[in-house]
Amino acid sequence: MEKKNNWLVNAINREVPRIVNGNKIIPYKGVNQYKPEGFKHAPRISSCVDFPDDGNKLIVGLKEALISSGLKDGITISTHHHFRNGDLIANKIFEIASELGIKNLIWFPSASFECHSELIKYMEDGTIHHIEGSLNGELGRYVSYGNMKGIGVLRSHGGRYQAVQDGEVKIDIAVISAPTSDSFGNANGIDGPSACGLLGFALADSQYANKVIVITDNLVPFPCVPWQIQGNYVDYVVQIEKIGIPEKILSGTTTITKSPDRLFLAKLTARFCEQVGIIKDGFSFQAGAGGTSLAVSYYFAEVLKRKGIKARFARGGSNKFLVDMLNNDLLDYILDGQTFDLAGVNSMRFNPSHVNTSPFTSYNFHGKGNFAQLVDVVVLGATEVDVNFNGNVVTHSDGLLLHGLGGWQNCLFSKCTILTIPLFRDRIPVIKDRVTTICGPGELIDVIITERGIAINPLRIDLMEKTKGTGLPIKSIHQLKEEAERICGIPSKPVFENDLVAIVKWVDGTVLDSIRKVRH
Amino acid sequence: MEKKNNWLVNAINREVPRIVNGNKIIPYKGVNQYKPEGFKHAPRISSCVDFPDDGNKLIVGLKEALISSGLKDGITISTHHHFRNGDLIANKIFEIASELGIKNLIWFPSASFECHSELIKYMEDGTIHHIEGSLNGELGRYVSYGNMKGIGVLRSHGGRYQAVQDGEVKIDIAVISAPTSDSFGNANGIDGPSACGLLGFALADSQYANKVIVITDNLVPFPCVPWQIQGNYVDYVVQIEKIGIPEKILSGTTTITKSPDRLFLAKLTARFCEQVGIIKDGFSFQAGAGGTSLAVSYYFAEVLKRKGIKARFARGGSNKFLVDMLNNDLLDYILDGQTFDLAGVNSMRFNPSHVNTSPFTSYNFHGKGNFAQLVDVVVLGATEVDVNFNGNVVTHSDGLLLHGLGGWQNCLFSKCTILTIPLFRDRIPVIKDRVTTICGPGELIDVIITERGIAINPLRIDLMEKTKGTGLPIKSIHQLKEEAERICGIPSKPVFENDLVAIVKWVDGTVLDSIRKVRH
Repeated sequence: MEKKNNWLVNAINREVPRIVNGNKIIPYKGVNQYKPEGFKHAPRISSCVDFPDDGNKLIVGLKEALISSGLKDGITISTHHHFRNGDLIANKIFEIASELGIKNLIWFPSASFECHSELIKYMEDGTIHHIEGSLNGELGRYVSYGNMKGIGVLRSHGGRYQAVQDGEVKIDIAVISAPTSDSFGNANGIDGPSACGLLGFALADSQYANKVIVITDNLVPFPCVPWQIQGNYVDYVVQIEKIGIPEKILSGTTTITKSPDRLFLAKLTARFCEQVGIIKDGFSFQAGAGGTSLAVSYYFAEVLKRKGIKARFARGGSNKFLVDMLNNDLLDYILDGQTFDLAGVNSMRFNPSHVNTSPFTSYNFHGKGNFAQLVDVVVLGATEVDVNFNGNVVTHSDGLLLHGLGGWQNCLFSKCTILTIPLFRDRIPVIKDRVTTICGPGELIDVIITERGIAINPLRIDLMEKTKGTGLPIKSIHQLKEEAERICGIPSKPVFENDLVAIVKWVDGTVLDSIRKVRH
Repeated sequence: MEKKNNWLVNAINREVPRIVNGNKIIPYKGVNQYKPEGFKHAPRISSCVDFPDDGNKLIVGLKEALISSGLKDGITISTHHHFRNGDLIANKIFEIASELGIKNLIWFPSASFECHSELIKYMEDGTIHHIEGSLNGELGRYVSYGNMKGIGVLRSHGGRYQAVQDGEVKIDIAVISAPTSDSFGNANGIDGPSACGLLGFALADSQYANKVIVITDNLVPFPCVPWQIQGNYVDYVVQIEKIGIPEKILSGTTTITKSPDRLFLAKLTARFCEQVGIIKDGFSFQAGAGGTSLAVSYYFAEVLKRKGIKARFARGGSNKFLVDMLNNDLLDYILDGQTFDLAGVNSMRFNPSHVNTSPFTSYNFHGKGNFAQLVDVVVLGATEVDVNFNGNVVTHSDGLLLHGLGGWQNCLFSKCTILTIPLFRDRIPVIKDRVTTICGPGELIDVIITERGIAINPLRIDLMEKTKGTGLPIKSIHQLKEEAERICGIPSKPVFENDLVAIVKWVDGTVLDSIRKVRH
């Protein structure tokens, strides 16, 4: 571990290392202050000469495919997270690598889940050097206590695409689990026993990795239609019995939160959006997964129905509520990045207005614009915010790294970003003087909605004006913080050691913050 | 013009120049004998910082868009040919450039049509230096007589993608005419008054050009769904009144040839395919546009109906006949590269089994395989073939360059390539000792079907065997040639001067043949 490091202070006043995993980093320069020089990553030119005449790329097993793809010490292997907690492939890859005595691999997932805590043993035995990707639950705890050999690198979904596109991360082998595929490697997520909806998180991997393996448990004759992953990028196809656990891929929990606090929060959010004029004919929104977000979509739908208007588009994660809005003509399009339930998968399969997107179209900051910035309002959560409206989504107030960034950073570029959060959790106030980890700069966070009042970022004078006379419970962020502290007391601060365990990248590839080892 | 040149003799015994338009070329090495070294073209990294926050990339006119995109002397400007003879944009681009006094541009279309003969005046006034793309009709004649400043470079549809992907051709400005677009630049060809079906020929341009302009006469609110061209690649969007002449975009001629000779040819082709066992349940085929090809599809359908079986897929150019097969359950999928009539456009709009493809998926030889090689049988035409089964599609026997390569070269990689040709045209025999221009090596051409007999390439012993006892009129290629010459006499050879006017590239970017100036 790079425990000794020269540190820099970046533009948002956070200490960041000069070198991470042997590579020089660029410190965060401020929102829209850094512009990349140079050219996209250029993969090696392939030739049909090296591929079977009949297009049949089937190879007998994952082990054989990995070996044929050049599995060796120190390379980077990527996977996608569309199977969420039902993924069976990532663990299998490193099991194979461990059996073969391969060391120091870098795992580059688009996200990790509890099911991946099994990989701790491959960090222990030296198979995995470090993980570049979200570090959730047990994996996060393991890293927080300083146990991982290398430094974790946390990126947003868009930042991951950017890093691959720009050649910051060079994927040696991409393994793409595909619910349906043909032997040419055309693949999709909408059909088959492990259907997960779409495969957009594997797009960059397919385009830029040196070798691409598609692994499926539902092989169909060419052509696999639609091809969300294009076989023309694929080297090998592996057929196995089971690539995921369907009931864990799709949670099936499409029920709105029953917590009265959260329902209140969601309702207040919809009321705010209506009263400041965000909800209007042709508007657009994004609300994440989880009970509160479902409830937000529900209340948005109520407003639309009452007003007799419709939204132009909703950005997904899709779920039953968005699908109902689409089917009930309250919404023209769902622009979906990942399906959260069976209703989402079915809708994507049959409804051409439920559209497959990718981190390239939706989130990549190093493109010629992206969809996230076109969204009128996005409703997100956070583990902490601070009096400067900075937000944290990866660490808890005890300092432990327990979540990934997801698309959170990317969504901050919407026209209005609302964080809907309880004022305290387990009697720990959520509003701080300074967030444990900065994941998003306060200047991009417009509104914080809590059960005890709404704080509007002073930069948004326009929103302040619009709330006048509405009766909305507007307070300053300081008022909200004091209120929480009156109830819960001032919480103690987490105790960190000096060692760096992970960094948080900004959407442009610069380093926004550092995460340090938590004292046991 | 580079009239003096050092010449090489390539692997198929043709003289090719060492240098073309200032660039060193690689001579053709043989089928599957050349493998590229190096890396794909790496476009400059963009940043959202440089694009409007609200995603609105509208700019007031094409002239302004061209100037903002860096229009200047000597750059390469690309267009696509989905509007065929109804294109209004290519001429407009060079009219603007000419008015601005810009010189020595390279036009890089995906194909040219008669409507583009207007561009001759911009070659005359020095605005255009040369054309890299198909040289049809008047443009071809102009070039054949040695009038173009630079050397024409003919590429197949797949070769064009390959050249852009590999950085052989660096597009400075791509102008993508789009029947429908939003102000972010998401665009498609299926909707709007100039609907042309799809925009696949502009895919490489969108991905790799330095600047990308979308020009539309049907602007819709974001999101334009489906987005066949992704706005994330687009710099500017221009809205004008009319981008194409609909009746010239879609010919509307969906009637089968009435020529008894051609009908006979088509019927014989279907009979051959049935009798050698190519037409079977789950087979696949491609037949181009034009009356004979329509008839081939028609007779294939007859065989399928009679046998009670269905084809797995047909590669398009789609037309009414393929669409009927799809709708009548004789076909699982149309994998379409360009729609030739309104039936094709409508079907693509509404039928998810009518699938949008691109030169990347279908034809790119420098991918990890492509679709063309998976097709069981392809039926094509030719202007000439020779006794070694080499084929010509670009020059006529008088030496004039009058056609482009289209997807012809790419299709030769199918499992069985049939050229269906009349034995003579205007009393000039089509079978030669040596084709005027080699566009496809004989080893990839399996069968030549004429109204007076079928010649099977001696390399295809398997096909020879299968015709035994079928009563099919099998003859040697020499027999066919002699028969034609008995009727028509031995034609005189075209008289060429030494000057190079164009080259023919092979699918891998090497140079297959040279086209010389025709003596007036």
